[in-house]
Amino acid sequence: MTAPGGDTQHGIRRRNLARVLRAVAAHGPLSRPAVAARIGLTRAGVAPLVEELLRAGLLVETGRAAPSGRGRPGSELAVSDRGPAGIGAEIGVDHLAVCAVDLRGRIRARVAADAANRDSAPGPVLRRLSVLLAEATARIAPEGLRPAGLAVAVPGLVARGSTTVVHAPNLGWRAADLAPGLAPATAAGDGSPGIPLTVENEANLGALAELALGGDGEGRPGSPPDFVHVSAEIGIGAAVVVDGQLLRGARGFAGELGHVPVYPDGRACDCGGRGCLEQYAGEQAVLRAGGLTPERAAAAHPGPGARIALLARRAAEGDTATLRALREAGTALGIALAGAVNLLDPQAVVLGGALAGLAPWVLPSLERELTLRTAVAADPGRHGGPAVTASRLGADGPLLGAAHSALRTVLDDPLHSCTPAHSPRSRIG
Amino acid sequence: MTAPGGDTQHGIRRRNLARVLRAVAAHGPLSRPAVAARIGLTRAGVAPLVEELLRAGLLVETGRAAPSGRGRPGSELAVSDRGPAGIGAEIGVDHLAVCAVDLRGRIRARVAADAANRDSAPGPVLRRLSVLLAEATARIAPEGLRPAGLAVAVPGLVARGSTTVVHAPNLGWRAADLAPGLAPATAAGDGSPGIPLTVENEANLGALAELALGGDGEGRPGSPPDFVHVSAEIGIGAAVVVDGQLLRGARGFAGELGHVPVYPDGRACDCGGRGCLEQYAGEQAVLRAGGLTPERAAAAHPGPGARIALLARRAAEGDTATLRALREAGTALGIALAGAVNLLDPQAVVLGGALAGLAPWVLPSLERELTLRTAVAADPGRHGGPAVTASRLGADGPLLGAAHSALRTVLDDPLHSCTPAHSPRSRIG
Repeated sequence: MTAPGGDTQHGIRRRNLARVLRAVAAHGPLSRPAVAARIGLTRAGVAPLVEELLRAGLLVETGRAAPSGRGRPGSELAVSDRGPAGIGAEIGVDHLAVCAVDLRGRIRARVAADAANRDSAPGPVLRRLSVLLAEATARIAPEGLRPAGLAVAVPGLVARGSTTVVHAPNLGWRAADLAPGLAPATAAGDGSPGIPLTVENEANLGALAELALGGDGEGRPGSPPDFVHVSAEIGIGAAVVVDGQLLRGARGFAGELGHVPVYPDGRACDCGGRGCLEQYAGEQAVLRAGGLTPERAAAAHPGPGARIALLARRAAEGDTATLRALREAGTALGIALAGAVNLLDPQAVVLGGALAGLAPWVLPSLERELTLRTAVAADPGRHGGPAVTASRLGADGPLLGAAHSALRTVLDDPLHSCTPAHSPRSRIG
Repeated sequence: MTAPGGDTQHGIRRRNLARVLRAVAAHGPLSRPAVAARIGLTRAGVAPLVEELLRAGLLVETGRAAPSGRGRPGSELAVSDRGPAGIGAEIGVDHLAVCAVDLRGRIRARVAADAANRDSAPGPVLRRLSVLLAEATARIAPEGLRPAGLAVAVPGLVARGSTTVVHAPNLGWRAADLAPGLAPATAAGDGSPGIPLTVENEANLGALAELALGGDGEGRPGSPPDFVHVSAEIGIGAAVVVDGQLLRGARGFAGELGHVPVYPDGRACDCGGRGCLEQYAGEQAVLRAGGLTPERAAAAHPGPGARIALLARRAAEGDTATLRALREAGTALGIALAGAVNLLDPQAVVLGGALAGLAPWVLPSLERELTLRTAVAADPGRHGGPAVTASRLGADGPLLGAAHSALRTVLDDPLHSCTPAHSPRSRIG
């Protein structure tokens, strides 16, 4: 096993720069000695790294004197609220959204629009998305922020390490490379290399948001490093996080929880299988079981979250059919997750997306199945499986995760991705 | 992320020693320049590492001149067939086995015995195992081999990083720490630290064997680095390998494929659940469905492999009940594995243990379900899921995997674990 960058002087320096930046981003403001202590280097070793990050504009001195008295007095260090911004975008079945976060993890711009993307070709969708991207970039530019990377969340399978959506059933997309359609948004104005583009399954990005923000919404990590993050919008997906890293699968197709067989002789699924989870806990299945017509509900309640709000309202009002539908969805989720827990032994299961808002009605039956079916894997003497919690981020997870993921290139390799202030800026839009 | 050993000089040297040893173990005999080329160091950088490994007796010169003519001529290097040996042990429901492999990965001793371990307390089982361990050590000692580590395969859950069997349902063990009972086998004779002991789930060790040996039985890796290894003896377990590493789970309990729900309203399982895979594809279920009484079959056909041979013979003779039982086991396996494949997207599924010997009758129905239920995760245009293959190692996998795993401490940190020839030897037994 080789460390990233190898054991060359260059590789070690790059890793140490990243460690300094991450330490200040996660725990700052910090004095120089506190940085050194956090990353296990000497104060003399940390000093030149800090100077480089200050010169590059990634760190700033707060002006407040560091409390520690030993050695040369110095100001505390913080990450800059100017400079690189991570741009996240989300392509939903019926909405588009863009947000920009700074190095401190704060949202600096956010734009969204309803959009009828189902069965629309990628071209028009990406053109509308580019308009939103340009709007977000225009908003952050006056504040000294420039896009450092763009990550796009999609409800479908993405080939590992590529920008190609292999299959997004609810959009009707197959083998669609998003890079050409987003080229205007990622190109630098002057022909120099533009900003990096990543395309990622929405459930994976929701899990990354959970890792970065799930704790208290202030950037302190809250989720345990091993968890299964369930994401439901129109479809149902999951992300598997092991030791704080996404498990992507050989081709990048891991996490297809929606097509785990729950009732093997049950309802036929569009995927060609039978009895898939999505047929019992997907939005359309729940609407139908609750006595609603999915198409009519979609027309009457367009946009992200509207139909979830409808279901939540009906459930809160005690509507019998809705309550039964959500209970049955929870049972199906519990059976599918029991399989996942037996296979993966996570510390927790986090319900994100639409499920977060419906948790009060879904959780009881879900937990009953999970407890019943994971007894072998439970701790001896303790009954039941891992903790099941609803994400605090709810439907925002994938978009926030995308923006944070776009910042990773900066955090992993601070100087490579850093454009000095005097060089031409990349632009989005 | 920090590399093992960190970026200290000591850590870097240790990693480089390990790289040299692994390169020669995997590809030797090799000339010094060939070693340098393989691990990306200069010839001058490699020379002192090689000398240290030669002095420690881990590498030897073959005496054959290296083909490359540049620089100082030298003999080709190979790993030693003396020195440290990995000791693997297996505690089965009705057998015990021990084997020793040398640094070249060759089996140098192997002893086994039938044993009625079901519902026997750990004490007597470990005493019998210690006798076998002493026998194996006595056999390899005259050949200049000494135990460098002991790994024990058990059919149950092992708490991560511990030697404690949390639950082995088919042995009737709960919260059993194996270290005290194996202390005589792992202690050094002179009171110095003995050899390291690891206790591991058998399916995990079967997967490690597959990684190390599955290719051609000659030590060249054959399995892709992402696979699910299914292991069946009395129970059914699985190991999930991601990027060549075992996925262990938060507590070490990952891989409980036998308790993945297949028919959620189906047969009650000892685990408290319902419709678990083990109730349809476990040995007892198959024997019963094939018209046999499991207890009578166990009495008439004791020992590892005997009942599998019985089922294989009946199937080969065309016995209708046996063929149907194996077909139904394949269907249940296919449903459970469809869930695993949708969640994990492995490159391959490998059937090990008893399933390897029954593959001809289990595979057709297994593959039919897997193909039907993983269409979304399949490559577009290509139908079906990952390749399903039967392990060439069959029921030997866990034992061989244990022995190779015991060698890992040497390969990961060659000089730390190396006892110079003149120092007192550790002993087993």
